[in-house]
Amino acid sequence: MKIGWIGLGPMGTPMAGRLLDAGHTLAVFNRTQSRADDLVSRGARRADTPAAAARDADIVFSMLANDEAVESLAYGGNGIVAGLACDAVHVSTSTISPDLSTRLQRAHQEHGQLYAAATVLGRPPAAQAGELFIVLAGAEAARQRIAQPLATLGQRVFDLGEDPAQANLVKLSLNFMIFSTIEQMSEMFALNDKGGIAPATLYEIMTNSFFSAPVHKNYGRLIVDENFDPPGAAVPLALKDNRLLLQAAEALAVPVPMASLLRDRFLAMTAKGEAGLDFAALSRRSRDDAGLLP
Amino acid sequence: MKIGWIGLGPMGTPMAGRLLDAGHTLAVFNRTQSRADDLVSRGARRADTPAAAARDADIVFSMLANDEAVESLAYGGNGIVAGLACDAVHVSTSTISPDLSTRLQRAHQEHGQLYAAATVLGRPPAAQAGELFIVLAGAEAARQRIAQPLATLGQRVFDLGEDPAQANLVKLSLNFMIFSTIEQMSEMFALNDKGGIAPATLYEIMTNSFFSAPVHKNYGRLIVDENFDPPGAAVPLALKDNRLLLQAAEALAVPVPMASLLRDRFLAMTAKGEAGLDFAALSRRSRDDAGLLP
Amino acid sequence: MKIGWIGLGPMGTPMAGRLLDAGHTLAVFNRTQSRADDLVSRGARRADTPAAAARDADIVFSMLANDEAVESLAYGGNGIVAGLACDAVHVSTSTISPDLSTRLQRAHQEHGQLYAAATVLGRPPAAQAGELFIVLAGAEAARQRIAQPLATLGQRVFDLGEDPAQANLVKLSLNFMIFSTIEQMSEMFALNDKGGIAPATLYEIMTNSFFSAPVHKNYGRLIVDENFDPPGAAVPLALKDNRLLLQAAEALAVPVPMASLLRDRFLAMTAKGEAGLDFAALSRRSRDDAGLLP
Amino acid sequence: MKIGWIGLGPMGTPMAGRLLDAGHTLAVFNRTQSRADDLVSRGARRADTPAAAARDADIVFSMLANDEAVESLAYGGNGIVAGLACDAVHVSTSTISPDLSTRLQRAHQEHGQLYAAATVLGRPPAAQAGELFIVLAGAEAARQRIAQPLATLGQRVFDLGEDPAQANLVKLSLNFMIFSTIEQMSEMFALNDKGGIAPATLYEIMTNSFFSAPVHKNYGRLIVDENFDPPGAAVPLALKDNRLLLQAAEALAVPVPMASLLRDRFLAMTAKGEAGLDFAALSRRSRDDAGLLP
Repeated sequence: MKIGWIGLGPMGTPMAGRLLDAGHTLAVFNRTQSRADDLVSRGARRADTPAAAARDADIVFSMLANDEAVESLAYGGNGIVAGLACDAVHVSTSTISPDLSTRLQRAHQEHGQLYAAATVLGRPPAAQAGELFIVLAGAEAARQRIAQPLATLGQRVFDLGEDPAQANLVKLSLNFMIFSTIEQMSEMFALNDKGGIAPATLYEIMTNSFFSAPVHKNYGRLIVDENFDPPGAAVPLALKDNRLLLQAAEALAVPVPMASLLRDRFLAMTAKGEAGLDFAALSRRSRDDAGLLP
Repeated sequence: MKIGWIGLGPMGTPMAGRLLDAGHTLAVFNRTQSRADDLVSRGARRADTPAAAARDADIVFSMLANDEAVESLAYGGNGIVAGLACDAVHVSTSTISPDLSTRLQRAHQEHGQLYAAATVLGRPPAAQAGELFIVLAGAEAARQRIAQPLATLGQRVFDLGEDPAQANLVKLSLNFMIFSTIEQMSEMFALNDKGGIAPATLYEIMTNSFFSAPVHKNYGRLIVDENFDPPGAAVPLALKDNRLLLQAAEALAVPVPMASLLRDRFLAMTAKGEAGLDFAALSRRSRDDAGLLP
Repeated sequence: MKIGWIGLGPMGTPMAGRLLDAGHTLAVFNRTQSRADDLVSRGARRADTPAAAARDADIVFSMLANDEAVESLAYGGNGIVAGLACDAVHVSTSTISPDLSTRLQRAHQEHGQLYAAATVLGRPPAAQAGELFIVLAGAEAARQRIAQPLATLGQRVFDLGEDPAQANLVKLSLNFMIFSTIEQMSEMFALNDKGGIAPATLYEIMTNSFFSAPVHKNYGRLIVDENFDPPGAAVPLALKDNRLLLQAAEALAVPVPMASLLRDRFLAMTAKGEAGLDFAALSRRSRDDAGLLP
Repeated sequence: MKIGWIGLGPMGTPMAGRLLDAGHTLAVFNRTQSRADDLVSRGARRADTPAAAARDADIVFSMLANDEAVESLAYGGNGIVAGLACDAVHVSTSTISPDLSTRLQRAHQEHGQLYAAATVLGRPPAAQAGELFIVLAGAEAARQRIAQPLATLGQRVFDLGEDPAQANLVKLSLNFMIFSTIEQMSEMFALNDKGGIAPATLYEIMTNSFFSAPVHKNYGRLIVDENFDPPGAAVPLALKDNRLLLQAAEALAVPVPMASLLRDRFLAMTAKGEAGLDFAALSRRSRDDAGLLP
């Protein structure tokens, strides 16, 4: 297939690389052009604009940092919508608002194009290994068309049906599950630490009993090791995802008190100079409040 | 070994039964005597008082509902402390306060007896199958003495060392992990439900990706099925465990905002006539706040 | 003076009326034109656009519902900025975001115009009586120019200095003080009610001891009387003001946990069909959680 | 009248002094006897036990730090109950739990004695000046008997009727109103400070508009001046009062989320070495979370 790829950050690069390795023809666009060098040296074509990457493609993927980036690269004369052929598919894999997903779908429909949201769960090593979890929603024609490349990217695809905004809402919800699990464990690590039980000991008990999911093991390990710098994903990204969740919850009139708590935690991290750390450093807030920080 | 057992509720009965089946000589005490009938018919001796169950025993186990029950059966002329022989061991498996555990240890020490806390994670079927997780702490002599019967009761024993109060703190912490995971999932079930994604769908995605621990699967299943009545464990028990956690956190000066949230949730359940349901019905509070209850 | 007035809602109408009564020449604009009828019959000139109301004016006031309304009437060919003469002053009295105030100031500066934010505290009867509290900020020239008409509108002007965004931040903060005082009283009304003490009794004690401010008396009275319908100001307005506060707090990296709680309360009100009530019906949430609603 | 007084702390001493000055015969007891010296030099009789202070008295007042102190001085052979004459009245002015008040009433009834709770709002200077606010409840005979001395102690008595526990619940509620107002103002002081508006400026606006109650003026002043040391009343006292409120709310099944927030704040103060400060230093928590502490 002819595939366009917009966005070559820590997630987009290994994902695009897998499609290239699988034999697809790849055109890539990234604002900072040098990030495309490696893929170009492996056979990808460099595109100067999102429109150029989308032109001639059967499918164009976007993997960008936030709503603002997607809006600026999707719309306008050089944007994805302007470049994409009739009946071709735009697959948004970014963690963006359900609302933007709905607006993108409408824009593509007006141009006779297809749109799907295929949000992904997993960090860069999982992207590299094709072991992402993918949450998919969009028009059936779009979902069928992209099934094969998605199988290259992820270990499992959860298909939600027609409404792309739902894939974005689920993705925000899964991220919330990560953040709130970190908070949950952090409160207990701090409490038990003051009670004489080391975080590593509690971690051992938790992850070998009822709390043995990847979310417990992976993030609990980061916390126990205080392995926050350099960050896998830094605080502003988590603050952004949580903000999108809060906005979606407001639009649907659903109180989410744990997300409110997370908001205040991430703001305190920002205020106290921890914004550059991995968001798992959220655990420092419980330790700070407990008088455990130096 | 000669073993005494105090407390034949839904957990104590199958646990005592396993020890009997393993060939130990068993003396049992329960306030409501008829609850001992089955074990007696299988060969256990009925004791009229906690002291009588403890007398002649190498080890006496207690599995009771709360601090008040333990205090009333441990102390006084007919209590465990009065009946237990010198050098024999009292193993408290109840979910009680760390503070009471410390006081029990002191009382037993003053009588030349040994004491350990061996708190258990798991519901009655796991007790039946000997698949409990056990968190153990107490004097080394006590821990050695009880190792074999504990292996009969649980699939794994986590040994914390000398201070019995730590086993109680960890147990309260693990229960908090359960309660707060329920709240966490419940907020997302309600949010996604209003966004058009059924709880069963989100459950499927969560438990097949990063959120695949028993805590997610077991309690998520109860929530999705709204399987709250009859309760496996009802709201007052969860409110009590959470209260003990809050008290321990106050004693150690550790803020635990998620536990504060849980407190308010359990109180609302009590006020709104949900106290008789399984504590997983906590999920109803998120649904109610979101306008999803009829 | 020649004064333009944009926005004739429940607050704008009596405020504009006072300026007319004080002898100023008044041009008025409102989207729904009929709302200007009364002022026109008293001598005001009807303007067809915001620009027309601003043209020839020494000062143009705007009193609008939210950021969106202000943006749509300030900018564009028919907007305030397009119509206002050089050196004339735009006074924004609306409860809008500090961020929009900063952008308005910049736009007016670029056109050689002056801008000030003069936010007001008080409900329509206070506007009628000229007893509003006014929080003022903006360039000194602007503040001097508008001092006299502001004295006609309010009983007291608090002058914050040069930065208009500060007047908006303070206004949002004062509204937060109102909302959170309602929540505070509501929790106690519900608690004491279940303890056998009627809300009216607690109100009497509070407002005659340490809690005797207008915020206690006015909003406590609404709660005790359950006087929520028709609303003085309905829930969506409070939800909006609280959202602006949360956004401002995020921009400044300041956790505001009480505002987070209010957010969840207002969302629950929205979800449970209470959006049409006065925001003081926030008290119903505490009563609901306490099992006191029928 | 013949009056006994138990408890000569910062509140009890000036209150007892007023009764002495009003011409009553006074017998005083305090654990640390030297605290009675001044009153004895002014004509009071020193009693060696609470019972001795109660004996011969028409009315015995108690003003003690907490439930534990009241229990230890009320009960037992040397306690108030043992010493008080038939038909004499015990007036508890301490901030204690509603539950203890109910138990005290029962004990006095069993001895043919009368009991009332007369809780007080105000700090030592108000006690000195007889300007306390008094919340009264108890048997009518008791209330009538003590009306005159209460008029000496307070500027106003709020009479709740028969059930003494209600006076204690109201007192805890009023203290909650103080604590939560401090939190409310503190969040706004921190937010506005980061927005460039000094706490003193916001204080000026608040206390001269809708937020002009003593609770705003007195505690806002302490916060603006950072006047926390030496404390008027230190953190452990506030933590205790808030704990009693939370316990009362649990007994009545009423969620009180703001009190939960206060609990976590006071615990963080304890953990971070601020326990010795005035409880108004609660404001430091908002500043800390906002990155404003050095």
